[in-house]
Amino acid sequence: MKYCAECGAPVVLRMPHDDHRERYICTECATIHYQNPKIIVGCIPEWEDGRVLLCRRAIEPRHGLWTLPAGFMENGEAAWQGAARETLEEANARVKILDLYALYNLPYINQVQLLFRATLLDLDFSPGVESLEVQLFAENEIPWDTLAFRPIRTTLEQFFADRKTGEFKFHTADLEPPVRK
Amino acid sequence: MKYCAECGAPVVLRMPHDDHRERYICTECATIHYQNPKIIVGCIPEWEDGRVLLCRRAIEPRHGLWTLPAGFMENGEAAWQGAARETLEEANARVKILDLYALYNLPYINQVQLLFRATLLDLDFSPGVESLEVQLFAENEIPWDTLAFRPIRTTLEQFFADRKTGEFKFHTADLEPPVRK
Repeated sequence: MKYCAECGAPVVLRMPHDDHRERYICTECATIHYQNPKIIVGCIPEWEDGRVLLCRRAIEPRHGLWTLPAGFMENGEAAWQGAARETLEEANARVKILDLYALYNLPYINQVQLLFRATLLDLDFSPGVESLEVQLFAENEIPWDTLAFRPIRTTLEQFFADRKTGEFKFHTADLEPPVRK
Repeated sequence: MKYCAECGAPVVLRMPHDDHRERYICTECATIHYQNPKIIVGCIPEWEDGRVLLCRRAIEPRHGLWTLPAGFMENGEAAWQGAARETLEEANARVKILDLYALYNLPYINQVQLLFRATLLDLDFSPGVESLEVQLFAENEIPWDTLAFRPIRTTLEQFFADRKTGEFKFHTADLEPPVRK
């Protein structure tokens, strides 16, 4: 951020009075521009035979890899509505959103990810513009080696483990930056 | 938003290609400025005798009314860390954050509120700059008529009800705009 979104004058990074961290402050109109974490909302769409719907990404990052439908929560919606909307956009699939299943903190990229369990309502799905393909996978068919994101792997592992016990428990974790080799 | 935070040129509200809603787009550098919901993080600090710590607000909105310690989650922290930080700032109180207890969607103000159960670690608390006073309340002492926010009332009601059953269940709700009389 270099300029004030309200008046167009330059901003400076400075600690406001009674604050505890530096903010971008306008040098003309004194507006304080706060920057806060963003929420990713997604779901685990489960068909009645137990298979789960995954999307192969047509966009960066992780183009070509498989993921659960998820994306940035938008203003004006509830988290579960955002999860359903992302599923419709990425897989043209209709879901009934169930319980919140996982919350991941990714402080190194200023994100909180909220993943819900969901029931896939019909088999009339197809790739949205951000997906190369969408497909149902049984547990033994999940493309573990070509999953796009660590929270997706963790969530799927826990989902299948929980399902065997007959009880879905809420999961939460703080993720560290991935180690680049 | 009227000006581009990156180059200072005017922005226009327009639907980007392959998007589904209007965004502020720079007329010069074409940067798309997304606006997303913010996260409020807070906790229910419980002392070992069952009393709960509330703060009386020294700031607007709801100056003079009682609330649980909570505030905007910051970049670079996990949600539970934000809840502990807010408790330290508003009540100079140290807590151990426990399970996520409630998630509230407030789409009409573009907020998601995450409230955690917490253990108050000692009785060395005092008002922070945003609080007029901080005080422990037993269930029958809670100032129900002077609570600042509906989610706080709901959370406290459910917390005391759950505590009687011996089991704390995760709660979630979508809140409508309050009715102004």
